[in-house]
Amino acid sequence: MKVFILAGGKGTRLWPLSREKYSKQFLRLIDGKELLESTYERVLNLAEPKDIVTVTNSDYYFYVKDICSRFSKEMEDNIICEPVGRNTAPSIAIACQYAIEVLKSDPEEVTFVFPSDHLIRPIESFVRYMNIGKDVAEKGYLVIFGIRPNRPETGYGYIQLGENKGDYNIVDRFVEKPSLDKAKLYIKDGNYLWNSGIFAFKISTFLEELMCYQPEIYNIIAKGYESAIRNFEKMPSISVDYSIMEKSKRVAVVPVSNMLWSDIGSWDALYEIREKDEDGNVLIGDVYPLETKNSLIFSNNRLIATIGVENLIVIETDDVVLITKRGNGQSVKELIERLKAEKREEVINHTEVFKVWGRYKTIEDGNGYKVRKLFIKPGNLLESEFHRERMEHWIVTRGLGELEVEDKKYRLKEGDSIVIPNCSVHRVRNVGNIPLEIIEIQMENSYN
Amino acid sequence: MKVFILAGGKGTRLWPLSREKYSKQFLRLIDGKELLESTYERVLNLAEPKDIVTVTNSDYYFYVKDICSRFSKEMEDNIICEPVGRNTAPSIAIACQYAIEVLKSDPEEVTFVFPSDHLIRPIESFVRYMNIGKDVAEKGYLVIFGIRPNRPETGYGYIQLGENKGDYNIVDRFVEKPSLDKAKLYIKDGNYLWNSGIFAFKISTFLEELMCYQPEIYNIIAKGYESAIRNFEKMPSISVDYSIMEKSKRVAVVPVSNMLWSDIGSWDALYEIREKDEDGNVLIGDVYPLETKNSLIFSNNRLIATIGVENLIVIETDDVVLITKRGNGQSVKELIERLKAEKREEVINHTEVFKVWGRYKTIEDGNGYKVRKLFIKPGNLLESEFHRERMEHWIVTRGLGELEVEDKKYRLKEGDSIVIPNCSVHRVRNVGNIPLEIIEIQMENSYN
Repeated sequence: MKVFILAGGKGTRLWPLSREKYSKQFLRLIDGKELLESTYERVLNLAEPKDIVTVTNSDYYFYVKDICSRFSKEMEDNIICEPVGRNTAPSIAIACQYAIEVLKSDPEEVTFVFPSDHLIRPIESFVRYMNIGKDVAEKGYLVIFGIRPNRPETGYGYIQLGENKGDYNIVDRFVEKPSLDKAKLYIKDGNYLWNSGIFAFKISTFLEELMCYQPEIYNIIAKGYESAIRNFEKMPSISVDYSIMEKSKRVAVVPVSNMLWSDIGSWDALYEIREKDEDGNVLIGDVYPLETKNSLIFSNNRLIATIGVENLIVIETDDVVLITKRGNGQSVKELIERLKAEKREEVINHTEVFKVWGRYKTIEDGNGYKVRKLFIKPGNLLESEFHRERMEHWIVTRGLGELEVEDKKYRLKEGDSIVIPNCSVHRVRNVGNIPLEIIEIQMENSYN
Repeated sequence: MKVFILAGGKGTRLWPLSREKYSKQFLRLIDGKELLESTYERVLNLAEPKDIVTVTNSDYYFYVKDICSRFSKEMEDNIICEPVGRNTAPSIAIACQYAIEVLKSDPEEVTFVFPSDHLIRPIESFVRYMNIGKDVAEKGYLVIFGIRPNRPETGYGYIQLGENKGDYNIVDRFVEKPSLDKAKLYIKDGNYLWNSGIFAFKISTFLEELMCYQPEIYNIIAKGYESAIRNFEKMPSISVDYSIMEKSKRVAVVPVSNMLWSDIGSWDALYEIREKDEDGNVLIGDVYPLETKNSLIFSNNRLIATIGVENLIVIETDDVVLITKRGNGQSVKELIERLKAEKREEVINHTEVFKVWGRYKTIEDGNGYKVRKLFIKPGNLLESEFHRERMEHWIVTRGLGELEVEDKKYRLKEGDSIVIPNCSVHRVRNVGNIPLEIIEIQMENSYN
């Protein structure tokens, strides 16, 4: 059995915590773990690390690798990096090819497809339903897991149940995100389930349906994994639901009840699924509420004091504070569009940026200089590009490093400092077994 | 003619912008100028710099001196620094003694007393009313300026008008901050004015009344300025209104109308006096409002995005975000009391602190290290105490300095860096004519 995790999705619905280059699957919204880490923990109840394949993109590669590294080297090795985003159909297709070609998977093997940023509880129900799905997939179906709705949600797609076959049903039809009136009818009707975006099928089943309904994708995949990556952008950008599930005659749905499922698609959704205090508040971080009710207040760094407010969502980050009435998810989208149009960096990046060697955080962006905190992972190498335009001052606040500037080598320990003149190539390696922390002051050339 | 500015008042009603060690008179709430600077500009229409005396305390001395320095050396020289706070009666008394003894003022000279943190407009009306008050003071009255109320304000004291004498009235009685019902009656009655806290009198008149009603204060003052400062804490802590104005038989009031006056005693008050946009918002700094109405949103550093909120006050600083419904001034007080009880530094200091030599700002407070930005004023000397416990790394980002470490001298220019080992006394002087800017990384001894 294989597991494909789709971790390339971009989205800023949880802005300012999520950014274009730092999406929801990397946020620590529950239990202090990234949603992707929780997703891995969940699927490790179904499959072994060597059978877990993650599909993501180059912007996210380092984050994904970092999280995989907490589990096993095999998971780090099984990361597929899409050169461009082409929605879910191509992602699943390339994962199938990777499984067969690289992991030597038997085409008759069942694989699961999971989004990387959902909340699912409890684990026992999850495992039970997945095993049901596996049996149905063995029969040659494309299996979807459908969640029994508890409210007329307009943010999800719906699946209309057809003929019942015991544990599962044939799918009658798919419905796009409905209007509120329609959604209410579906609840009343009782034969409509939410489309969870979780699938199970034999790799062969999927490839047959892909050949039949998406030959453009199939033909690129069929030429082999490496070639498919090179020609990835030639594939149509299309979702698996729209391109295959809605067309195939071999789709079954496993109805899921008594399992908490959420795609945490908005701050309101997070408020709903988190436990509230006696005032109906969800308070995260350094928050000091007075006469405050039914609000989600999320502090990352600074004290947030609130007085006499209700039904608010407050999200504080290093560079942005978002304050919105609950139930305004749509307007958040509009806000972000406007900020993008104004090329505001706050939409794209955080002040902290992940790299293959670790991460850095800009703590002061001054006139003619920048102050950054560098965190270099044990054993990792930070190779600086050649800086014609700036000199750098480094002060080591933690750890052990070995610095090379041009042909000279220096040993760096806590408290050491060094000046790296402009035009000099340099590289530093963390030779200790704790993170190497360096404060870097960059000065523009004009200053020398 | 003399002018006394009372700039020692502490208050956190505009927290988190005001702090215990950074009070309202230093905030840039209007026209980007500190209220104290605006106060000086206003009174310079009445008196010359050499006749302006400021009374403050040691916590505020450097801020006051810095603002005075924008006007004249004479104003810098005429700052009285109270060793402890004793309310307004002792402050005015010591200023009278200073005027006579140090400025060789004629006791028959009229002096004005102004709070340092009020908004008054327009300047023409101000000057006209002050000149009326001066004439009345010449007659031997203690003159108060009473503001014609436009709403039943419960935050101010009231003055009941007695016999009319043309431009002025005898004061019938003073009323403490009234209940809303009482305040409404006063408005209806029409014979009640707000107590502006602005006074005018001949120095001799004040001292006579002081001797009569507050001999304890008078006797300390009478021994001379230096001795009075040394014995300052022996004076009773009492307001001039309560101790003299409400008792004296020689009090007159000059009614003031058609002049905007506010003590800006709360965020609500600031909202009231500031101009609103078409949505009724007062937006200061980097604010991005969507469907936002009748709110005051004040950003100092970060982007504040708001969606679908109304009647909110949002104040963002480096270390605190306050979010409160408008009309909650009282609760802000309560909040601060609670934070004080928890010894939260955010109540006392900003991340930026003023010193005689300039100022510094903590930009990162790490585990075992601190990163600070130092701004040293031209010609000024920063003398560091002897640091047994830490070493310091300095990087100059702007300006020219001369550093002495132990007996060695170094010239510092932009881009230079130096390590100051622990246990070494050091001092740096700004020898350029622009601010000397230094990034300082302090490391605790344990790291060496």
